[in-house]
Amino acid sequence: MITVLKNGATAEQRDKLIKWFEQQGLKVNVSVGEFQTVLGLVGDTTQIDDELVGSLEIVETIKRISEPYKRVNRKFHPDDSVIDVNGVKIGGGNFAIIAGPCSVESKEQIIEVARGVQAGGASMLRGGAFKPRTSPYDFQGMKAEGIELLEEAKADTGMPLVSEIMNANHLHLFENIDVVQIGARNMQNFELLKAVGKTDKTVLLKRGLANTLKELLMSAEYIMAEGNENVILCERGIRTFETYTRNTLDLSAVPALKELTHLPVVIDPSHATGIARMVEPMAMAAAAAGADGLMIEVHNNPAAALCDGKQSLTPEQFARVAEKVRRIREAMI
Amino acid sequence: MITVLKNGATAEQRDKLIKWFEQQGLKVNVSVGEFQTVLGLVGDTTQIDDELVGSLEIVETIKRISEPYKRVNRKFHPDDSVIDVNGVKIGGGNFAIIAGPCSVESKEQIIEVARGVQAGGASMLRGGAFKPRTSPYDFQGMKAEGIELLEEAKADTGMPLVSEIMNANHLHLFENIDVVQIGARNMQNFELLKAVGKTDKTVLLKRGLANTLKELLMSAEYIMAEGNENVILCERGIRTFETYTRNTLDLSAVPALKELTHLPVVIDPSHATGIARMVEPMAMAAAAAGADGLMIEVHNNPAAALCDGKQSLTPEQFARVAEKVRRIREAMI
Amino acid sequence: MITVLKNGATAEQRDKLIKWFEQQGLKVNVSVGEFQTVLGLVGDTTQIDDELVGSLEIVETIKRISEPYKRVNRKFHPDDSVIDVNGVKIGGGNFAIIAGPCSVESKEQIIEVARGVQAGGASMLRGGAFKPRTSPYDFQGMKAEGIELLEEAKADTGMPLVSEIMNANHLHLFENIDVVQIGARNMQNFELLKAVGKTDKTVLLKRGLANTLKELLMSAEYIMAEGNENVILCERGIRTFETYTRNTLDLSAVPALKELTHLPVVIDPSHATGIARMVEPMAMAAAAAGADGLMIEVHNNPAAALCDGKQSLTPEQFARVAEKVRRIREAMI
Amino acid sequence: MITVLKNGATAEQRDKLIKWFEQQGLKVNVSVGEFQTVLGLVGDTTQIDDELVGSLEIVETIKRISEPYKRVNRKFHPDDSVIDVNGVKIGGGNFAIIAGPCSVESKEQIIEVARGVQAGGASMLRGGAFKPRTSPYDFQGMKAEGIELLEEAKADTGMPLVSEIMNANHLHLFENIDVVQIGARNMQNFELLKAVGKTDKTVLLKRGLANTLKELLMSAEYIMAEGNENVILCERGIRTFETYTRNTLDLSAVPALKELTHLPVVIDPSHATGIARMVEPMAMAAAAAGADGLMIEVHNNPAAALCDGKQSLTPEQFARVAEKVRRIREAMI
Repeated sequence: MITVLKNGATAEQRDKLIKWFEQQGLKVNVSVGEFQTVLGLVGDTTQIDDELVGSLEIVETIKRISEPYKRVNRKFHPDDSVIDVNGVKIGGGNFAIIAGPCSVESKEQIIEVARGVQAGGASMLRGGAFKPRTSPYDFQGMKAEGIELLEEAKADTGMPLVSEIMNANHLHLFENIDVVQIGARNMQNFELLKAVGKTDKTVLLKRGLANTLKELLMSAEYIMAEGNENVILCERGIRTFETYTRNTLDLSAVPALKELTHLPVVIDPSHATGIARMVEPMAMAAAAAGADGLMIEVHNNPAAALCDGKQSLTPEQFARVAEKVRRIREAMI
Repeated sequence: MITVLKNGATAEQRDKLIKWFEQQGLKVNVSVGEFQTVLGLVGDTTQIDDELVGSLEIVETIKRISEPYKRVNRKFHPDDSVIDVNGVKIGGGNFAIIAGPCSVESKEQIIEVARGVQAGGASMLRGGAFKPRTSPYDFQGMKAEGIELLEEAKADTGMPLVSEIMNANHLHLFENIDVVQIGARNMQNFELLKAVGKTDKTVLLKRGLANTLKELLMSAEYIMAEGNENVILCERGIRTFETYTRNTLDLSAVPALKELTHLPVVIDPSHATGIARMVEPMAMAAAAAGADGLMIEVHNNPAAALCDGKQSLTPEQFARVAEKVRRIREAMI
Repeated sequence: MITVLKNGATAEQRDKLIKWFEQQGLKVNVSVGEFQTVLGLVGDTTQIDDELVGSLEIVETIKRISEPYKRVNRKFHPDDSVIDVNGVKIGGGNFAIIAGPCSVESKEQIIEVARGVQAGGASMLRGGAFKPRTSPYDFQGMKAEGIELLEEAKADTGMPLVSEIMNANHLHLFENIDVVQIGARNMQNFELLKAVGKTDKTVLLKRGLANTLKELLMSAEYIMAEGNENVILCERGIRTFETYTRNTLDLSAVPALKELTHLPVVIDPSHATGIARMVEPMAMAAAAAGADGLMIEVHNNPAAALCDGKQSLTPEQFARVAEKVRRIREAMI
Repeated sequence: MITVLKNGATAEQRDKLIKWFEQQGLKVNVSVGEFQTVLGLVGDTTQIDDELVGSLEIVETIKRISEPYKRVNRKFHPDDSVIDVNGVKIGGGNFAIIAGPCSVESKEQIIEVARGVQAGGASMLRGGAFKPRTSPYDFQGMKAEGIELLEEAKADTGMPLVSEIMNANHLHLFENIDVVQIGARNMQNFELLKAVGKTDKTVLLKRGLANTLKELLMSAEYIMAEGNENVILCERGIRTFETYTRNTLDLSAVPALKELTHLPVVIDPSHATGIARMVEPMAMAAAAAGADGLMIEVHNNPAAALCDGKQSLTPEQFARVAEKVRRIREAMI
């Protein structure tokens, strides 16, 4: 960590700051230049509060050389983490596809979709029971009943379940859910992160719509700092000025996260683009970029439904995407 | 609400959709053009799920003419809401300044700052006890103890208190806090919004870092839909590409929100800019733009503290800002 | 085109507007609802100025159903355009890799790099002679001399040349340059677009850092409206809040542009990421997403140079990337 | 300037880099830490290419302590620049309002508006003759004829003229235009900047839609580096995710630019908001924030025009805004 002092800093102010750093257990290298003084801090700077130090009157700027996260950091954990979700492995060369409907709607729907995606190549089933919606008047999910229907689909197919949690007080309902998902809007809901960090459930953490990769990693660190090491990261599109797609899928997040962390990285092309016909090219691109898995929205489109969802695939379309992704992955070896 | 159908939509598909809209209690005006069919929906469209309709195969685009929010909407509540916080009024011509430290640090600090800002023109005291931090290793606030110290400052000065809540399970601790603040990162923590909506406490809702005004209003609607009408909106800077200031203060939010809603609008120039010397010009500009109040960070800077915080004012500096703001408001009459 | 009138619009105002639309050669379908009146405009609305109509006092909102661009529009030109650059085809299934150094530095450098990338699989040579730089004090390129060196490399290898133009008055220097590049910062330099539109040179048009795909297409339309149909679009990363990569590569632009236009789409992973080791995964992902070509920065790294450029590959690294891309493309058939 | 070397940098690589810095005339302070080596560069670092140094294999990061701009820098020119535009002063306490129509449409229009805004308090007349438009099919301005009509309005009222230039080859047409405006989309059209930098005309440089203040200053530096010191900066709204206003006016740019540069700063609330009724509060806020002037769109709304433009004021509305701004400015003394 480098701290550059302002020109006007007095020797007394400087010494006070150096002493304070030393009290935090750091070694301080002082380099006095003609125009500025640079303090190089050596030791465990994780506990140092960037904002606090940066806000000091005498500090021109601070710059971290080492990252403020530890447990998620690849530097201290060079090998890929492999996460075992009830027998399904992800990370370290293990590729997994999570598929299913945006919302659980009925027993028939979820069982039919579950069987369909399993046949098409998915290894985990997703389904929303608690839905975060911008409007209080929009459908908020089937809640506890939706969880029960997911459990029936798991009993039927044996697939591990992925479902979003929005409230730590609901954790008891998620006992049979194998992976709890933290949605993009809750990425910095630190209280929820701490709560799932106290469990041993696998957490699928989605990147917020306007968050940096570093912020995503700091949120994963919140979970791991509580003792839970089973974290999967998910890029699901960020907010940009483009309006043709719902969000903009940031595929460079895949190689970037692979450098920064040992955690598995999953791509959600359905939410990122919001357009069913763009799921196939983006799923293939994600695989080519080195992702550890995909999360794809699939709906069974029964006659009762008005029409296809804009971003959902049918099980048949899903099977074709999964096959193309498989071919891309073979070409990469 | 206007729904434009795709060229390829069949008469059967169209009629099915029209019938569904009618089942939702809407009247449907059909306008068949050469190249597209437009459905004009008349009635209460608040309950219609934009995303669902927009995702239908046969729908080219949908466009709301009336907003999806009701209780926050100025159209249905033309007069400004005046919120009475334990005797301090805000909105409808009543201007209030909330001031205090970012974090409560000690009894001496909070009492001294409280007295200082009261003397300088503040009518409410803010102080953070629970602090949302990007890093799990950064200082997270004094928590329950911080709340107690705020209560002592209230007993001393009589000023109503404003403090951030991050977890609905903490609500019992906030009994004597007059205004609970929902921070920017929790603006779409819908579970927390619903929880404070079930109380009768005034809620100060901060706009998220990358959220639109419409999203802010939808979050306020979550609170009001639960029955709590005491909501104050706060613009505190949005994320842009500019790096000189911490965030970018969007002052056009003031006249924009004044058109859209009857709720009071407060500006936080301290968090928006992150630079103490920019608080004065931005506070003056906020008043000139028609804001109902300000939220300003003030620290007492005791000898024990290393230095001034970068974005905090001293009580003396605060008094000067308050005086300049007063003069601007007089010039507006 | 749909025009929704405000509630308060009088019959007289409405009729005046309808008459004006009819004078522009459009047929107007009027749909009078309880709360609003909708005008559906049928005919060639390309010439209608969105902003002008949207700014009218009585207009609530306007919505284009058909796009404001014609010549770039796939609707009016369903087949992929295949552009022939001096014998090298791109588009319609023809994949081309453009490679070379950011700046031309010397004869030895450009000849060595040209031979290297040709051996590695590139079919066109890029090299900057005029360099757009944020600072007037940074190196601005070798200018006319750089163009001459490129010509020598072309004579040596037979590869067509790609080089950026910043000033229409320089066009005479680009006589032997096969593809003139319009950089991201000049994407909306409409005078330059018109100038290259008057030539018959192939134009490689880069998307601006904060521009939408529609804006990119409108800029391409500027070129085509002047008569030049040889336009290649290039996505090179957009500005987002992420700081790990220089910009954020928007690969969903590939399938999106493929839907909207018949023009070839090229991806520049070097400028998008700014990091050499991320060029390989992003080039592979671009191919998997369906791009028609790549633009990759390659430097020969002679002993005289201080070190490797951060985003440049060596010819050897480039050859490996090209081979991996070839394998991905084979897996897609 | 601080250069932090990577852990793996060899002594040989380090010494080579230090030698190169010394050849550029800089003094290098080396601070060897346990985990990294920091080079502090002392001297004129303006000529150092950040991107080049940052891209070196052995460099972890670089950080400028002093800014890469000189002529625009307040550090080297502590007093406010006062620019005299044909008798009208701006900067250093001199406040000027520029007003007029978006486009010159006819002699009657421009003369009537000119007289109206002069009576209302404007001291310069703006009018567009060359209009940058996203679509090649939208109205591109009256061009040379528009310039002539502006000259007639100047002859009539004596007001100095402000008009946008898009092409350096048009400079001869701007002989009687007192201030040439560089539009937001041309902010980084470096060739145009250099061309106007070679004249002695006052240049009003608008900030690009997604550009930082530093980039704006670098573009101003391009003009000044050619010898032209008469530069006025203009904030006209930046692109954000907000859709209620056309762009987001960044008023913190006023105090920020006042710290960084001695050049006058003008605010354009009309283009920033795109909504006439928001011009008044934003103009007042701009004055309260310390701007040196305003640029406001005013139209005379003759019977022949369909309706009011959405963002234009009538001369009467303009006069009221100017009066309110005057009152705000008085309250600031």
